[in-house]
Parts: sequence; C-alpha cells; structure tokens
Amino acid sequence: MIPIDDSPIVRDGKSLILAMDHGLEHGPVDFEDVPEKLDPSTVFETATHDAVTAMAVQKGVAEGYYPSYEDDVNLLLKLNGTSNLWMGEPDSPVNCSVDYAAELGADAVGFTVYSGSNHEVEMYEEFRDAQESAREHDLPMVMWSYPRGQGLKNDTKPGTISYATRIALEIGADIAKVKYPGSPEAMEHACKAAGDMKVVMSGGSKTSDYEFLSTVEAAVNAGCKGLAVGRNVWQREDPTQLLDALERVIYEEETADAALEATE
Amino acid sequence: MIPIDDSPIVRDGKSLILAMDHGLEHGPVDFEDVPEKLDPSTVFETATHDAVTAMAVQKGVAEGYYPSYEDDVNLLLKLNGTSNLWMGEPDSPVNCSVDYAAELGADAVGFTVYSGSNHEVEMYEEFRDAQESAREHDLPMVMWSYPRGQGLKNDTKPGTISYATRIALEIGADIAKVKYPGSPEAMEHACKAAGDMKVVMSGGSKTSDYEFLSTVEAAVNAGCKGLAVGRNVWQREDPTQLLDALERVIYEEETADAALEATE
Amino acid sequence: MIPIDDSPIVRDGKSLILAMDHGLEHGPVDFEDVPEKLDPSTVFETATHDAVTAMAVQKGVAEGYYPSYEDDVNLLLKLNGTSNLWMGEPDSPVNCSVDYAAELGADAVGFTVYSGSNHEVEMYEEFRDAQESAREHDLPMVMWSYPRGQGLKNDTKPGTISYATRIALEIGADIAKVKYPGSPEAMEHACKAAGDMKVVMSGGSKTSDYEFLSTVEAAVNAGCKGLAVGRNVWQREDPTQLLDALERVIYEEETADAALEATE
Amino acid sequence: MIPIDDSPIVRDGKSLILAMDHGLEHGPVDFEDVPEKLDPSTVFETATHDAVTAMAVQKGVAEGYYPSYEDDVNLLLKLNGTSNLWMGEPDSPVNCSVDYAAELGADAVGFTVYSGSNHEVEMYEEFRDAQESAREHDLPMVMWSYPRGQGLKNDTKPGTISYATRIALEIGADIAKVKYPGSPEAMEHACKAAGDMKVVMSGGSKTSDYEFLSTVEAAVNAGCKGLAVGRNVWQREDPTQLLDALERVIYEEETADAALEATE
Amino acid sequence: MIPIDDSPIVRDGKSLILAMDHGLEHGPVDFEDVPEKLDPSTVFETATHDAVTAMAVQKGVAEGYYPSYEDDVNLLLKLNGTSNLWMGEPDSPVNCSVDYAAELGADAVGFTVYSGSNHEVEMYEEFRDAQESAREHDLPMVMWSYPRGQGLKNDTKPGTISYATRIALEIGADIAKVKYPGSPEAMEHACKAAGDMKVVMSGGSKTSDYEFLSTVEAAVNAGCKGLAVGRNVWQREDPTQLLDALERVIYEEETADAALEATE
Repeated sequence: MIPIDDSPIVRDGKSLILAMDHGLEHGPVDFEDVPEKLDPSTVFETATHDAVTAMAVQKGVAEGYYPSYEDDVNLLLKLNGTSNLWMGEPDSPVNCSVDYAAELGADAVGFTVYSGSNHEVEMYEEFRDAQESAREHDLPMVMWSYPRGQGLKNDTKPGTISYATRIALEIGADIAKVKYPGSPEAMEHACKAAGDMKVVMSGGSKTSDYEFLSTVEAAVNAGCKGLAVGRNVWQREDPTQLLDALERVIYEEETADAALEATE
Repeated sequence: MIPIDDSPIVRDGKSLILAMDHGLEHGPVDFEDVPEKLDPSTVFETATHDAVTAMAVQKGVAEGYYPSYEDDVNLLLKLNGTSNLWMGEPDSPVNCSVDYAAELGADAVGFTVYSGSNHEVEMYEEFRDAQESAREHDLPMVMWSYPRGQGLKNDTKPGTISYATRIALEIGADIAKVKYPGSPEAMEHACKAAGDMKVVMSGGSKTSDYEFLSTVEAAVNAGCKGLAVGRNVWQREDPTQLLDALERVIYEEETADAALEATE
Repeated sequence: MIPIDDSPIVRDGKSLILAMDHGLEHGPVDFEDVPEKLDPSTVFETATHDAVTAMAVQKGVAEGYYPSYEDDVNLLLKLNGTSNLWMGEPDSPVNCSVDYAAELGADAVGFTVYSGSNHEVEMYEEFRDAQESAREHDLPMVMWSYPRGQGLKNDTKPGTISYATRIALEIGADIAKVKYPGSPEAMEHACKAAGDMKVVMSGGSKTSDYEFLSTVEAAVNAGCKGLAVGRNVWQREDPTQLLDALERVIYEEETADAALEATE
Repeated sequence: MIPIDDSPIVRDGKSLILAMDHGLEHGPVDFEDVPEKLDPSTVFETATHDAVTAMAVQKGVAEGYYPSYEDDVNLLLKLNGTSNLWMGEPDSPVNCSVDYAAELGADAVGFTVYSGSNHEVEMYEEFRDAQESAREHDLPMVMWSYPRGQGLKNDTKPGTISYATRIALEIGADIAKVKYPGSPEAMEHACKAAGDMKVVMSGGSKTSDYEFLSTVEAAVNAGCKGLAVGRNVWQREDPTQLLDALERVIYEEETADAALEATE
Repeated sequence: MIPIDDSPIVRDGKSLILAMDHGLEHGPVDFEDVPEKLDPSTVFETATHDAVTAMAVQKGVAEGYYPSYEDDVNLLLKLNGTSNLWMGEPDSPVNCSVDYAAELGADAVGFTVYSGSNHEVEMYEEFRDAQESAREHDLPMVMWSYPRGQGLKNDTKPGTISYATRIALEIGADIAKVKYPGSPEAMEHACKAAGDMKVVMSGGSKTSDYEFLSTVEAAVNAGCKGLAVGRNVWQREDPTQLLDALERVIYEEETADAALEATE
C-alpha cells in the first residue's frame, strides 16, 4: 500500500470502479437481457459519469475502445482473467503485462487473487511481479481478493472476508475489492483488518435499486472506500440514474433513502 | 483489437485466409485423395488468387516456400500447432516466435486458443506473450478460438461460439476464427459478442460447392468478415473456380446461387 | 553465512526480531483478543523499543508503515509467506523481490524454508535466488527453518531442529529461526550443528511471562543468539514490560527470575 | 527448411551421418561385443571416411575428442538425449545449448522429437528454441523424428513415418531422420510428405551387410537423401568396407549387389 | 570433458576430494560419534593435508569457513544438494549458481545427477546450465553420477556404474564420482566406458582402514583417478594417518599393505 489519494481513480478518498469483464469471466450469458451492452462503447459511455473514477476492462477491450474515451474515462486495466469453461482449482491467467497496460494509458491495474486455491502460491507470485512492475510505472494496484478453492466452502463468511482484506494489505495491494460479508459489523472488521489500505465492496449480481444502495450505504458506513460494480449498473435500464444515487451515497455519504429520493 | 483495415490481409474490410497446416494438425491423411497437395507449392499457387488475402502455414513451410511467393501471397504465420498423436487435455505448442515470424516476412500471425481446456491458463499466457510481441511488430493477431476440453461436450453450440468470439475480443485478438454455430441467428449473436472485432468462419471438412457457399453466404450476412478455409479449397479438383465464387460471396456479397452460376 | 555482527539487526552479537506477518500466515484470528493490533502502527510503535533489533513484516505492511518508522526501527522484509486457506504440501510464495526490499529500505531479508515438504526442491531454489540477490545488496538473510511435510510427523523433535539449523548453515543463511526442541540439551546440539551461524528461537504461541522468559533464558544459555517473537509480545497488554525483561535475559544474560523482578 | 546443399554435412545433395550417442541412450550394453569402441577416438577415426558427411555425438564427447578431428570430420552436435533408466512418457533433456555447440565448432545440430508423447508440447517448444537459435548461427537442424508414446503402438507403420517427416517439415527441420517404414512405397510416401525437405533413413540395430545395403538402396530409390547410422557401422569388424559400399549406394546410386561386389 | 590436469584439484593426474556436505544430505546423524566435526573448521583443517586436492562443501559452509583456508585448501563448490526429509523420486535443488561459486573462489564445481530418476530430464537440464556456466568460468565440473529412482533396484551393479560413468562423459563432466561396483573388473569396465574422462571412487560409509585402503587400491589399479571421500576420513579419530596412507595408495600406487605399514 502506497498513498494513492492523488490518483485519478480516487475522488475524495474514495473510488467507484465500473467493471465490464463479464464477457470473459462469465460469457455472453450476462448480457442476455441487455444484448446492446455487448457493444463495449455503451458501457464506456456510462463510465463517463462523474461518479465513476475508473472503468475496469481486459486488454482487448481497452485496445479497441479506450482511445475514444481516454479524455473522459480513467482506465483500470484488469491484468488477469479467465473463462468459466474449464475445470479445476481456481486460477487466472495473466492476459496483459503492466508495461503494455501503461502503454495503453492505464491509470491503474487490477489483479484477481484466489487465496485458498491450490494455485495460491503461483497466483501470489504472479501478483508480486505485477505489483512491483506497477510500482515502477506508478500505477495503483487494485486486488480482486476472492478466497476460493478446495479448502473453502463459503467464501463470504466474515472471517474469510477479513482474511481477504488483510492478505491484500500484507502482499501489497492499494485497494482490495471484496464481497460483502453479510453484515455491517463484519464489513467493519474487514476494513479494520486492512489497516490504512482502502477496501471497496464488490457489486455482485443485480438486485433492486433500494437493496443495492442500502448495502452500499452500510458498507461505506462500515469503512469501505467505495464500490466496484458491474452488472448492478450496466444491466439496468437507466444506469445514469443509479450512478447519480451512488454518487450521493458514496461521496456525500447520504442514506440510500435520501439518495433514491433525490435522484428519482 | 486494433484497426487492421489497412493491413494487406484485409480487403474491403474482409479476409479470406487459406490455411494449410493440416499435415501437422491431422497428419498426411488429409492429403489422401489429393497426394499432389503434399507439395506445399501447389497450395501456395492457389493462394495467389486475388480472393485470398493471406495464406496460413507453420514456420517450416514458410521457410521453405514463402521466399518464392512473397510478391504474390500474404503470409499469416501460424505460431502454434500440434500433432493429433498424443493424449490429454487440448494444448498446442508454440512453434514459432513472433520475432522470427517477422523475420520470415509475415504479414500477420495466428494462434490457437482452446478455452475450456485444463491448459487454458497456460494457453492464454502464451497468447499474451505472442499478442504483445505482435503489437511491437505491428502484425495483426488472428485467433483460432476453439473452446475444447474436459468441461465442454459440444464445441459448436451457439453459446459456446459467442463465448469464443467474446474471449477473442477481451484478450486482444484482431480477428477470431470460429466454427459455424449452426444457424444464422447464432452466428449473428457471435458477431455481436465480438463488438467491433472481426469474426471469420472456419471452413471445416469438405462439403459440396453449394452447401459450402451457402453457409459462407449465411455467415457473411450474419456479420462475418470473411472465411478461413483449408480443405474445402485445396482438397478440390479446381480450387480456383471455388475461389472465384467465394470472391463474389464474400467481397461482392452475392448469393451462393448467383456466385455459382457466374463461375461455372 | 557471512559476518553480520556489524549489521543494524544485531546488537552485541544477538538479535531480537519482532515479527508481525500473522495476518497473512494465520489470518485475522490471531488478533481476536487484541483487535487494535490490526493497525500495524501499534506494532511498529512496540518495535521502537531498544531491545528490538528488527521488525519482520511482509511487503505491503512495509510499504504502508515503514516510512513513518525508518528512523526508529530496522526493517526485516519477509520475502515469502502464504495464507493457511489452501491444502497440499507446505509451500510459500515469494511475495517480494530482494531488489524491491532494498528499495523499501530493508536492513535484512527473511525467507521461510519447509525442508521435508515435497516442495523442498523448489523452495531451496527460490531461497538460492533470494540469498544470492541479498548478497549483492549486502543484506543479511534470516531463514525461518521449519521442517514440515508428508515425511515429517513431529517437527520439533531434537533431531529435526538440529537438522533445521544445519540446513540453514549449509545452504547459506546468516541466522536460522527455529522452534524450541523441548530441552536445553537439544537446543545446544542444534546450535552446535549450525557451526558459527547464529540461531534464534521462535517465540510460538502466547504463554505466561515466566514460562516464556524461562524458555528464552534456557535457549540463550544453550547458545541461541536471540529470539524471533510475535504473538508473545504484541498479544500482551503491555509489550513494553516484556521487552524490558527480554532485553535483560537476552543481552545481559540475566535469569528469567531476575529479569521479571527488575521489570515488574 | 532452408537450403542446405552448400553445408559441409551435405555431399551431392545427400548425407551420411555417423551417430555415436548410444552410450547415453542405451548404455554401455551396445558396446558389449566391441568394447574397444567405448573409446570414442575409434569411432571418430571411422568418421574420417569420405562417405561420412557428419559425426553425431553428445556435448561431452565433442568436447573431449572433436579437437583432434576437426580438420577431418564434420560435427553434428546432438543437442538432447536421455538414458533409458527412467520410467514415464518419452522425453529428452536438452544437454547442450546451440550457442555452446557453435563454440565447439559444430557444423550442424540435431534434436530428437517424440511426437505422440504426452511431453510433445514441451518438446516442440524446446525444438523451437533450438531451431531459431540454429538459424542465428546458420547451422542446419537435423530432427530425429520418432513418434512414440502412450497413444502410439507401432511406431514404424507407414502412416506414422509419413506423419513424422511431415511434422519435421512443418515445424522447421532441414533434415528428418526416420525409421524405415517397411516398404519402398511407404518410404516414398514419407519422402513426398516432407516436400522439399531431406529425409534420411535411420540405421537401426545391426543386420547383415547385404540386408542393410539393400534397405539403404530401397530407401535412396524411394527418395531418401541418405542415411544416419550408428551400430550398423561401428559395431562391425570392418566399418571402412561397409562405408565404401554405402558410398556407392548412396552417392553413386549403385545397387547393393554392385556395391558389395565392388568393395569385397 | 576438457583437459584439467593443470587444475589445482588435480595432482599427478589424480584427485582426492574430501567431501563434507553430509549435514545437508543425511543430517547431523552422521556426526553422532564425532560431534566435534559439526564445526566445519575441523574438517577444513583436515583438508589442508597435501593428499587432499579439493574440499567439497555447500555454499553456506564455503561462505563461512573458506576465507580462512583459501591459501591452504582448494574449494570444490557442490552446487546442488538436498535433505533426506522428503518423499518422492530422487531430485536435488541447485543451491548455488556457478557465478556465485566463482565469486567465492571455487577451484571447481560439483553436481549430483540421479540418472534413472523420473526427474532425470530436469536434472540433466540443470546440469547443462551449470556445466556451460562452469566452462565460461574455466572451472572443472565434477559429477556425482548416482543412478537412482523408481526404475532402478540395485544402484551399484556393474552395468549401472558403467552407465553412470558413460553418462558423465557424454553430457560433459570432467570427473565422475561413482560408487564402487563390487569388483575390480567392473570398476575397470566403468573406467573404460568413460573414455579419457577421469573416474573417482566414492568413499561410502565408514569401514576399517585396511578394507577401505584395499578397495581404493583396487579402484586405482582398475583405472580410477582417485577418490572422493567423506565419512571414511573425517569420522576417524586420526584422519591424518589415513590421508598419509591414501596419499601412498593413490599417488604412489603403493599397495594398501605397504601404505598401512608405512604410516602406522
């Protein structure tokens, strides 16, 4: 962890990361109800919203679409990622070098780590290479810290999420993206376990506006420094309205109720 | 994906790739009915047809025969490839470095990726190295995107082919070569899943002139930017006639019927 | 082994290393009774005690907190470390390069080696790389020499601990951190097996003040050149008082009784 | 494949390679009846015969004996090779780098590839590195193309040998050494499958003069560009006489009968 | 094999290597009866005997003790070595790079190769790297050639030892250290199988003075160019007396009887 408050991906100490790598991780099935979003331009448009501090995509999408948005969107290049077609202990190939991410104009890089996988050793070492290379390029490192594997049954129980944030702190992330551990108390503990490192909540699958904003409100109150969200934004009919509300909950620390009322 | 419309392997936004690496992938058995085609010169001669924008071969064939055809044929150096003699999850060794491909005068490089294989992680990482090296040499990257492996039963069902094109877009290909998913609607979805990246249909095993041209017509109408074909061309008695017809279907967007009539 | 008596991590030929990487190795559970210690600053404060010759942490903690303590604390950068979430033969990923440790201002580096693990071959080779790189940076190498794995049942029996110190000497450590083998005689043998290389006792899980100091006294009498301790210091209500006592036992070679009396 | 007719290992478009790496591949047992041949000098003496265009040995033998023969013998440095003591799918360690082979004065390099082994992927990639390095040093690459492994029962059936020569062509060999597939027709097909690349027959275990020369005659008539032979030469009492006969069969294209008669 | 008769580790064409890496390979148990020998200085003292042409130790012992003996002892840095704590096919990690060995003042390097292990391929390739690096530093390479593994039952039978020396010759050692194959005839064959490369007998576990010297006498008569010995020297009460006798047997080619008589 190094100081990143001056980074473009941070606004008032917080971040709202819009992620769109589901086509790789889950396949086109995530776009079934919103086929027009298969065109990455549509999501980049959404990412121009002021509330969004960075858009997280894989290399190929960055190559093809970021040149048209580099003035209006900050790029978080997701360095690894995998399809869900194969079988075996969780792992994730490194699809982009940090050098190339920098060449593409990235403002930060992202890396998934599956602690608990029998590939943990290999993944930590790949993370090390990427992290030290990111330091050379002065790029913040965001870790998708997702414990998962043979030795883990429930990957969102409180102890696991606190372990996830702590690991991110210890091995050198600047921001940890973790799943919501089910309660504000557990989220607060997970944030404490991260010391001064920022924790952002992972958006997860689509829920109602109110349910989603309430969870974000709880997470922010518990110490989260923002949100990394995909489907809960771009699977909606009107992502802009939700981003308006998220802007209030995250940066103004308004309640979900107040934010919803103000933006409806 | 980067813009490649100015590349020699593209003509009017489309490509017709003539592939001849079957001696490695399938063995001499593919030449059983056309033994004279064991001489690579014969296929290079066919590739001088104006409809063909690139000829795809392995390193050794390029070394031995491309020097005689470099004025008339564009070279797509296929970087990996394997025999079918061994057993185990799909994988493909990298037989040629991008540096050496460039030295041989390649106009583009090609790479097979078996998403869904238990070697997916390794294959994506080899693809990354090749892709980033291709960027340095300004060579388009064509991905043979073929989901295959323990976790996959039917590798041409619609969802799989759309996943295949999306993966190619996300991890940085410029053209994805995929199998025909069985219907124009499925092909159209697969092309949409690729965003602005070009998709070309894979020719497959030999069928009748009409059947083959009809499928190409359907694929082009569905959004395919051309064809990568081997046996369906060079296993024929008169490849030139079929290439005449393909030229009309692909670049002039004529129907299979009209193209056949005009070239018979 | 090279001469390290002039290193800042050595005081009068001995070392007291305060370790705090439990958040990675064991998870936040080690902080259950002392949640305020999740903030690494609190442990760095403790490490400013004169008795402490080095504080051992992982890369991320060093990045985030060492800049505020570099005048008052010597940094021992622990190069490898793993979570306890996965299953399989003991192994430990290398999370930090020696070059980067040096950049962070490390005064020494640390490395865990699980001799007896079926990953021993790989771990020794990673140790070699780190050790030779440490020599280039003139940084002492501390080995956590912990025999562990399929072939080992009881990893603190005398023969095992003597083997552990000998391995550290033979493959190039400057200090070996080993578990207490149960008796002063066994500890003495383990120190002899290390030749002129320094051996420090590992603190282990928390025990009473007297019990802990007595074991340290026995170890020092047996030839140990100090202590590497974590939980037995920072899990206490008053770590400073125990450090006062440890200072007397280790550097003044007072008895546990005398040290306790003098510091209570 | 690149043009190698000007290479010292080629005479009138053909090659006769004398191989002596049996001490590594089979063990001293191959020398049981000719113990004096354990001294590599004796085989180097034989290799000074004009018919022999290259002597194939492992690195250590080249280091020790080639300096005395470099004016009279061309060196084919065999880059990989293994003992027959271990168990598992066929594989072969790379015992010599191409750089070092060049330093030793090699005129060409050799590499065994076991297509069909479950180590095929790894072996092709090692071959690639060696082949591209050989190109830099302008050294012809001879491939011992020996399909072998779990998926192969009979490694000399016609289809397998034709596949073996084709693989060698496709992945970049200049000469393929293959076993005799049992009939002149099969050998002819295997030579055709290799396009313009040279195929040489592998000598195999010792047979009678006539039987051996007849097979060589048949192979040459079928399109083979020579022979790679070991035991059939140096296990004989009078290797020179057989080399005289081989010279006639290979370079003069005499019959076995005529050659035998002329040299007896 | 390159000429090494001018190397400091050779005296009159022969070598007597005193090895002391048992603390790593076997553990402190080898020192049970001679605990004072746990101090490496004691063995270095022994190595100052004129009969000893080199002392073989691991990196850490060289770092710590060789600086005091560099005027009186020649250093043979053993590059690999392993504990006996783990389970699986024989293997040995590389604990020291050749570059670093040279920096430590090594006069030669040593490397264990377990031909017949299922790790043979990997070990040969590690040997290659070390051997070629040793050539750059002009350091003789001594191979501990020990066939061992799943496919081998009795690793000292004549055929195995002859194979062991031959492998060492073929893959590039300068001296092979092998076990005594049970008879002078078998030893002679093993020496012949090595061509001009030197073979030294491995000392093995401690036996009586006469038995040991007689075996050495037989080995020298059979063509061995000396001895590599550990326990049979430093486990004795008076290593100097035995070294006096060995000097006569090895360099003066006296009988065991005569040598014993002269030195008692």
